[in-house]
Amino acid sequence: MNDRIARRMEDIKSFQVMELLARAKELEAQGKCIVHMEIGEPDFVTPQPIVEAGIVALRSGQVHYTPAAGLPALREAIANWYSNSAGITVSPERIIVTPGASGALLVALAVLLNPGDTVLMADPGYPCYRYFVRLLEGKAVCIPVMETSAYQFTSRHIESHWTPETRAVLVASPANPTGALLSQNTLAALMGSVESREGTLIVDEIYHGLVYEDKATTALVLSDHVFVINSFSKYFGMTGWRLGWLVAPKNFTRAADRLGQNLFLAASTPAQHAALAAFKPEVLQILESRRVEFQRRRDFLLPELRDLGFHIPIIPQGAFYIYADCSRFSADSFSFARELLENIGVAVTPGIDFGCNAPQQHLRFAYTTSMEQLQEGIKRLQAYLN
Amino acid sequence: MNDRIARRMEDIKSFQVMELLARAKELEAQGKCIVHMEIGEPDFVTPQPIVEAGIVALRSGQVHYTPAAGLPALREAIANWYSNSAGITVSPERIIVTPGASGALLVALAVLLNPGDTVLMADPGYPCYRYFVRLLEGKAVCIPVMETSAYQFTSRHIESHWTPETRAVLVASPANPTGALLSQNTLAALMGSVESREGTLIVDEIYHGLVYEDKATTALVLSDHVFVINSFSKYFGMTGWRLGWLVAPKNFTRAADRLGQNLFLAASTPAQHAALAAFKPEVLQILESRRVEFQRRRDFLLPELRDLGFHIPIIPQGAFYIYADCSRFSADSFSFARELLENIGVAVTPGIDFGCNAPQQHLRFAYTTSMEQLQEGIKRLQAYLN
Repeated sequence: MNDRIARRMEDIKSFQVMELLARAKELEAQGKCIVHMEIGEPDFVTPQPIVEAGIVALRSGQVHYTPAAGLPALREAIANWYSNSAGITVSPERIIVTPGASGALLVALAVLLNPGDTVLMADPGYPCYRYFVRLLEGKAVCIPVMETSAYQFTSRHIESHWTPETRAVLVASPANPTGALLSQNTLAALMGSVESREGTLIVDEIYHGLVYEDKATTALVLSDHVFVINSFSKYFGMTGWRLGWLVAPKNFTRAADRLGQNLFLAASTPAQHAALAAFKPEVLQILESRRVEFQRRRDFLLPELRDLGFHIPIIPQGAFYIYADCSRFSADSFSFARELLENIGVAVTPGIDFGCNAPQQHLRFAYTTSMEQLQEGIKRLQAYLN
Repeated sequence: MNDRIARRMEDIKSFQVMELLARAKELEAQGKCIVHMEIGEPDFVTPQPIVEAGIVALRSGQVHYTPAAGLPALREAIANWYSNSAGITVSPERIIVTPGASGALLVALAVLLNPGDTVLMADPGYPCYRYFVRLLEGKAVCIPVMETSAYQFTSRHIESHWTPETRAVLVASPANPTGALLSQNTLAALMGSVESREGTLIVDEIYHGLVYEDKATTALVLSDHVFVINSFSKYFGMTGWRLGWLVAPKNFTRAADRLGQNLFLAASTPAQHAALAAFKPEVLQILESRRVEFQRRRDFLLPELRDLGFHIPIIPQGAFYIYADCSRFSADSFSFARELLENIGVAVTPGIDFGCNAPQQHLRFAYTTSMEQLQEGIKRLQAYLN
């Protein structure tokens, strides 16, 4: 017997927040009431018309494999969505339906990266990005983004970190955990910078739709040579269904399709049928009212946290996160998060889950719970921190 | 812009049968009636109690992420299944629920393989095995298995192909495309051979339950140091739901859980709730009647194909495939498959999809269609080949 675990697993970490989540569950089992501001998924359930479409699909026996790239009707519906929401034409052939945005990320990186290739990305950022790159024997170069650039990844970052090994740049807009949104100008500059270096830009747009002032610009408006990741999870409220998509440049679509076929066979069939209802006007109306509610929560939580003494230099423009500097209260955000959980039953995510850029000074607050719960959380924080 | 596709994609092929499938659909669109014996999934829909459990889950809002390793209740249900069906104790902690067996394969190989490590496997075999290994920069060593060993992979194969780079052996029982079943003795010998060389055995058991004479022995009966892949797709009739599981040795479970968390977040929530019904007595009764029907189809198809002149030296013991030598009719099974489709509307899978071991001499017939359709297919073949 040989218990040798592959080397890559030394670099692939679990989400630290899971430890806090487990502890939160223990406390709840003991009867404590926990305010959850650590959870990276909407508290809303899937809109009813999507659920009903899923049920109709199940009742009518839609339980066999779909084509690897997804139901043709769904790929067309996604293409129409781009047409209606962004006024652009995206060929359905460029759209590969995947098991979550996770599947799309794996496919995009796997058709791009050779071992040793590097991918530039922002730190703080979604932790899985660097682990997908590590899985494929590439190297993630995590570049600190600071409040001076509004936590945005800019073409200056590219200029100063690009090397001959760099194959791609991966950005998220709006971003987890900062909520930073890339303006169309910044995005265009990024694209120009990457393309002039003969690299490839990958844009994670899974929080599109969840923006509160400006509209988010899809990178597809600017170029046909970009990889775009998206998902039915966040905006459409379908997290547990595990359904996302990839838009690949034309020259990569056959490889992406072929890889998806081999890695996944196909995405979930009931989920795909359900998602056909996601673009209906009555669903979009529900989603808009949820967006308004998320904004209301952000607009409550942000000034309250600032008043308490958290340093939040930039108004987060999208997603449902506030990335707050907690160094006034603690030099170790992980201990501080544990302390808040134990002492006042407030669960938040420590910065350590998002990279190496001053994680010990930061906490992520997710406003994925009701106003009442957020108010309760703030009340507890006020009593504890003042 | 840079259209350079990663080198791995030169080695990762699409299923050749897809081309035939697309042509079959064209012919059907023209009004032709096609007999489908190319399809690797049961024609039966998901058993109704599983579908109902899925609907109940959707109606009750079970649409958020589950823990990465799966619903605790489902992991326990799978452990109970091993206890009831094989009389063994498998700790639920060793069971990781995954998006299909595909997800389980990816996790198992990724926690085991370093770049350059080799994995021994049978040729013919399920094509994706070697592509998962390639994705991870390992090397698949595909070893011809012949009728002389009843298409089984044996410890002799291990002895003659083991090198210092070999990390693991991957076998399937029953196997796709041959239907070959590993006896408990063969499995024990394989395990002894692998463990004495300090390697790891991975056993794909996704066709367990679909066996027609002997009972299939799970490798978990023989060792706690084996990786076992299984799925709700084939026996439980849940292909499109995309739900499988991995049983990992104890020392690998934390790494496997961590990797699943990063690569998938979790498997589909509605599918997991639905699968909780899969082990109910009324479902097992439905599955047993389907197994009997598959056997009836095999017992019809096998002698008919032999009578026609296909060489099928070994009675396939499991799965729903017959791997037939067609060299009496053609020296090129791919052209022959195309010919059968065009001329008599019979769709089968050419050997090329399963490896390099005389693929041009072989076709795979899947009995995943009704007796009436199989009879029609045989009638057409008789008229055409005689």
